[in-house]
Amino acid sequence: MNPVISVPGQTHDDGVLASGGLNLRAVAIDTYKENVAYLHRDCDVYRAEGFQALSKVEVRANGRKILATLNVTSDPRIVQCHELGLSIDAFAQMGVDQGHPAYISQAEPPVSIAALHRKINGERLGREDFQAIVRDIAEHRYSKIELSAFVVATHQGELDREEVFFLTEAMITTGRRVDWRERLVVDKHCIGGIPGNRTSMLVVPIVAAHGMVCPKTSSRAITSPAGTADTMEVLANVELPFDRLSEIVRDHRACLAWGGTADLSPADDVLISVERPLSLDSPGQMVASILSKKVAAGSSHLVLDIPIGPTAKVRSMPEAQKLRRLFEYVAHRLGLSLDVVITDGRQPIGQGIGPVLEARDVMRVLQNHPLAPQDLRQKSLRLAGRLLECDPDIRGGDGYAIARDILDSGRALEKMRALIEAQGARPFDPERAALGSLSFDVVADRDGVVTGIDNFQIARIAQLAGAPKVKGAGVDLMRKLGESVQVGDVLYRVYAAFQSDLAFARQAADRDTAVRLGSAGEVPGVFVEF
Amino acid sequence: MNPVISVPGQTHDDGVLASGGLNLRAVAIDTYKENVAYLHRDCDVYRAEGFQALSKVEVRANGRKILATLNVTSDPRIVQCHELGLSIDAFAQMGVDQGHPAYISQAEPPVSIAALHRKINGERLGREDFQAIVRDIAEHRYSKIELSAFVVATHQGELDREEVFFLTEAMITTGRRVDWRERLVVDKHCIGGIPGNRTSMLVVPIVAAHGMVCPKTSSRAITSPAGTADTMEVLANVELPFDRLSEIVRDHRACLAWGGTADLSPADDVLISVERPLSLDSPGQMVASILSKKVAAGSSHLVLDIPIGPTAKVRSMPEAQKLRRLFEYVAHRLGLSLDVVITDGRQPIGQGIGPVLEARDVMRVLQNHPLAPQDLRQKSLRLAGRLLECDPDIRGGDGYAIARDILDSGRALEKMRALIEAQGARPFDPERAALGSLSFDVVADRDGVVTGIDNFQIARIAQLAGAPKVKGAGVDLMRKLGESVQVGDVLYRVYAAFQSDLAFARQAADRDTAVRLGSAGEVPGVFVEF
Repeated sequence: MNPVISVPGQTHDDGVLASGGLNLRAVAIDTYKENVAYLHRDCDVYRAEGFQALSKVEVRANGRKILATLNVTSDPRIVQCHELGLSIDAFAQMGVDQGHPAYISQAEPPVSIAALHRKINGERLGREDFQAIVRDIAEHRYSKIELSAFVVATHQGELDREEVFFLTEAMITTGRRVDWRERLVVDKHCIGGIPGNRTSMLVVPIVAAHGMVCPKTSSRAITSPAGTADTMEVLANVELPFDRLSEIVRDHRACLAWGGTADLSPADDVLISVERPLSLDSPGQMVASILSKKVAAGSSHLVLDIPIGPTAKVRSMPEAQKLRRLFEYVAHRLGLSLDVVITDGRQPIGQGIGPVLEARDVMRVLQNHPLAPQDLRQKSLRLAGRLLECDPDIRGGDGYAIARDILDSGRALEKMRALIEAQGARPFDPERAALGSLSFDVVADRDGVVTGIDNFQIARIAQLAGAPKVKGAGVDLMRKLGESVQVGDVLYRVYAAFQSDLAFARQAADRDTAVRLGSAGEVPGVFVEF
Repeated sequence: MNPVISVPGQTHDDGVLASGGLNLRAVAIDTYKENVAYLHRDCDVYRAEGFQALSKVEVRANGRKILATLNVTSDPRIVQCHELGLSIDAFAQMGVDQGHPAYISQAEPPVSIAALHRKINGERLGREDFQAIVRDIAEHRYSKIELSAFVVATHQGELDREEVFFLTEAMITTGRRVDWRERLVVDKHCIGGIPGNRTSMLVVPIVAAHGMVCPKTSSRAITSPAGTADTMEVLANVELPFDRLSEIVRDHRACLAWGGTADLSPADDVLISVERPLSLDSPGQMVASILSKKVAAGSSHLVLDIPIGPTAKVRSMPEAQKLRRLFEYVAHRLGLSLDVVITDGRQPIGQGIGPVLEARDVMRVLQNHPLAPQDLRQKSLRLAGRLLECDPDIRGGDGYAIARDILDSGRALEKMRALIEAQGARPFDPERAALGSLSFDVVADRDGVVTGIDNFQIARIAQLAGAPKVKGAGVDLMRKLGESVQVGDVLYRVYAAFQSDLAFARQAADRDTAVRLGSAGEVPGVFVEF
């Protein structure tokens, strides 16, 4: 199997005046994904081009072009008059040494701004509009302000389903696309919002053990205390060059890696930089983001997990069904075979929240350990079963039992060990792992039954404790929904590595423990079809 | 007359963990109105507080607090481990010397973010919501991303008229407010979009010569080639401390100054930093921006100019009437007496576009010069007449004739000279002024009648030529709507001071001259009531 990657053509035009050359200089300021160029106020070029601070400029060197935001300085220690400074990331993109000649010019306004304005005014956009907007976004031609405007205008204006398809399609065509040269390439995905929900790390080894191709690339945590990539990183290296990933998939039928290096759907990565601080996650953007990455990654079949619960992203069955139909419509137009599974999202899955704790839970399930969380095991088997049924040789309804056999027999554990070895193992003992050395317990303040665990608040406590940056930080849940507790019983334990993190987490837990106690009758019911 | 300024109370709370002290350092980077704080990556405080690049932090020193965006650096020439760097503007706000001890902590998320989300989701907001949002904006608690979200959500969600009132009221209460201790304080304002429309510089001397109090503070150009402040600055100093402005108003009944120093409606200044790059100017935001500044500046009576034309901000009479009703509703709730005048916005007013050229036109009208543009004269007399009729001693309908007498008699010129002298005259000869030394002509490519002048495109050409930064740059129109031209006749002349500016302007004029030629029957009619 030799996967092929296609890269879209470059689409710059050259209709701007160019300035004289300057010497490139790396300015060691981390501006977090925003390219920043620094010019000295007395630089001749600055005056001649009529630049303004914070305007967008185009920087060219070595045959490459990037767009950057201009900052102006009068400090020669930052840049001198003959120099052009670039922030760390921006400098790396040019691929040259310090002092290399570079050119700067006014950036033309993005061509798609007229389409953006039409969307802001509530109009419906066409296929070409989305292509133009997404291309400009992927090429970093939009400022943060314009990105926010796009995200809010498409959130509130509620894209119709054909517009969501156009947006998804545009996201696919502006990025790289992998062709695994296999008939069946399977994947699973969850829309997110449920802490501890590490089913991918069980589903992938199960279906790969069956022989299915499942090249799983995951994100790191965006708004959660751990993403699959963060958790897998406790066990193995996840940052692998694409060629190495291909070898691993060829040898083992699967991988569990970080997707950030593959440059799939680059516009999505740019949009996330705005959606995350705004905490916006509208149906249209969610569908486009997820399906564009799956198609770009070469998947042919996808099982999608939509959890429902009072503190999940989706809070009712009608809402879940509406979202399911939107996913199905767009997937169908893209030729992607999609199976949506609506699941129980009333509380976290498993016991641990945070990379090390979640890795422990996953390994316990794979090892059939007596303390393995049963909810994580059951959910993973169900999802793996649905994915196995994509195999034309497996009858509908048989998937679950086959998945269970693969797990119980140890074949899934064996596959996981092979993947860890292939990606580069890290020393990890799930029972004695490097948890944060600081901790505190949150206890029941009265007798009762657990009637609710707020996914959002418990995730926030784990994040304040340091997860996912600090791998051993997080929350270990001792009680789940419906369990009885007595006053003084430990509800959960918080781990941290730094005193200040512990203090932040304790402050948050004092304000709101995230665990509700009441009577057995108050436990919310499950609204789930499998 | 002793005007009184009231300043709203400070409303910070103190519920964040504080870090150890660092030494403050000015970092000479101009970040254009965005406060930026720089920490060294190896700084103990950086690790302990769990900061992230681009997160908002609170910086405290000398009893003052500001919010800033955090940039992280590894270059000790920018900041060392024990230092806290601040961008130029941010450093100035602290009012201390280099090396002064300072404290940094996580900024709490703005309390009004929940209200912002409700607006993004299309809900109606109440008075308290707008107070909270506008307070957070004025105190720089919103990131550019959040500001854009607010601007787009209130643009598209079309605030209802009571919401516009709440927004306006909130903008007033978060800034300073001037009380001139006069019964009648008059002002005029135009919603903008028409190049060359410098009527304020004629209306103010006329009504002040009549004895009315008209303390006119204007903005600099935001999206246009010249604002009133930019043009007045050709003749006189416009950046005056408030105490000096008060003296001038006491002595001369008027002033023509820049409003930026007065700190009226500070939230509006912050919002403009997002509205300008997005070119968004929705009715609700326009009404709130204009009326909040007028009320904060202490005006009791306002004449408002709404131009209509195919390339004006307002393109039809129904649209103008809708906007008029919104202005009137909000003005009434604020207790401001408002007179809306709908005017002819089919083309630029006067002949010159750009500070020096517009100052020339204004002085020609005041001097009753034979080349004085008649459209600028007529429009100014009509607006001044309406303002004069706010005087209870003047009968409705008599204002125009009184304004004309004041202008023709030279009393308006005399008043203008007194204002220029009081503010600090600049040497200026309107007939031999410092126009840019470079120029080119745009000529008619066929015989015909001028059937259209695109306000937006002609403004863009003037801006590319360097206006308003380069005072002598701009466009001098030789032909106006309805005039006949023969092939080769000069339509307009473009002035610039720099070769590159000239080239940018020429490129734009080549693409689109902004002047349409056709037959006499194609000249669009005027839809104007006076």
